[in-house]
Amino acid sequence: MTPTITAFERSPDRGRGQARDMRVRWALEEVGQSYDVRLVSFPELKKPAHRALHPFGQIPTYEEGDLVLFESGAIVLHVAERHAGLLPDDANARARAITWMFAALSTLEPPIVDREIARLVERDEPWFAQRMPIVEDRIRGRLGELSVRLGDAGWLDDAFSAGDLMMVMVLRRLNGSGLLEEYPSLAAYVARGEARPAFKRAFAAQLAVFTAASTG
Amino acid sequence: MTPTITAFERSPDRGRGQARDMRVRWALEEVGQSYDVRLVSFPELKKPAHRALHPFGQIPTYEEGDLVLFESGAIVLHVAERHAGLLPDDANARARAITWMFAALSTLEPPIVDREIARLVERDEPWFAQRMPIVEDRIRGRLGELSVRLGDAGWLDDAFSAGDLMMVMVLRRLNGSGLLEEYPSLAAYVARGEARPAFKRAFAAQLAVFTAASTG
Repeated sequence: MTPTITAFERSPDRGRGQARDMRVRWALEEVGQSYDVRLVSFPELKKPAHRALHPFGQIPTYEEGDLVLFESGAIVLHVAERHAGLLPDDANARARAITWMFAALSTLEPPIVDREIARLVERDEPWFAQRMPIVEDRIRGRLGELSVRLGDAGWLDDAFSAGDLMMVMVLRRLNGSGLLEEYPSLAAYVARGEARPAFKRAFAAQLAVFTAASTG
Repeated sequence: MTPTITAFERSPDRGRGQARDMRVRWALEEVGQSYDVRLVSFPELKKPAHRALHPFGQIPTYEEGDLVLFESGAIVLHVAERHAGLLPDDANARARAITWMFAALSTLEPPIVDREIARLVERDEPWFAQRMPIVEDRIRGRLGELSVRLGDAGWLDDAFSAGDLMMVMVLRRLNGSGLLEEYPSLAAYVARGEARPAFKRAFAAQLAVFTAASTG
């Protein structure tokens, strides 16, 4: 059964692949599962029909027969559990890979999103310039700890997994901030993720939505 | 095999059960799995021996033979997958329960933690009083959406699950803020979680650590 995911009708980042549908697209490409995409406009996100799928009025959602999921982490885990390619066979290694998914979403992403929210919502507030270094130092703290753990390994726990997929996607949110470049091993780690053929296919697919909307 | 978890040697919240070991204790109590606890001091958290278990120098960790996990979400999911009682048998219902775990950690918890960080780190900054309403309105937005979805149901998706466990724990972080009381159905939902015998056993166990430290 071909699942259907939702994505923004108009990419807020002009096709840079920062919207959360990119995580799900990448996971589906890694496991070789084709998918359909339903584009949702910003007004539609907050309407009852979409809220029935996603109580927080966001994308992505994932529909597969009777099953409706939201939260990119839950969708990627669902895909990884039902197909080979994103989780190791060994039970302990599998639990560790899932741990890195949670670490990406619970430990790394919140301070990174906090920086984005500040830039969006508080840019004109009088405290913006003074507060930003506090926010960025919190990100640096986590990046430093992550780079120590990664060391000179290629991926976080042996082979590439859904944990790496989620971590690469979260770290990519720092593109353009200059912060990732302060940790060259993490910048190289993200580049390794972006070099995977499945990432490239997923990136091209989400970019095509933006390109079509721009020229259509 | 009896797992060992880590917890703070000295409870930062005086035994109110807000530290993340409480989530793991509750999960283990729900499934009837006994566990050992190793208490870690604040200086020890940042030392190499603990960092080897937890790259971000936090609690809880989970050790079970050769397996070492961190991130409360990953640990609760691991416990839920290996024991009956926290995830439904039906595959689709199981995926939905896991979705609520991710929603708790990725969508609800970040703005709640943002408020805590602001109160800890920015309380003396000149912008504190002006910024706090922005932070709290972000929390209200999520609480409103969650209360709409919950409606008059007892739990988020039919029977109590690991998704409810994580959501109740995240919402409890608002204790004392007055925010949860603005959404009576969510306050009642948290109270239902706290009334579960497994919650009470876990709460008593973490409180005993604080009481022993205070009188010892």
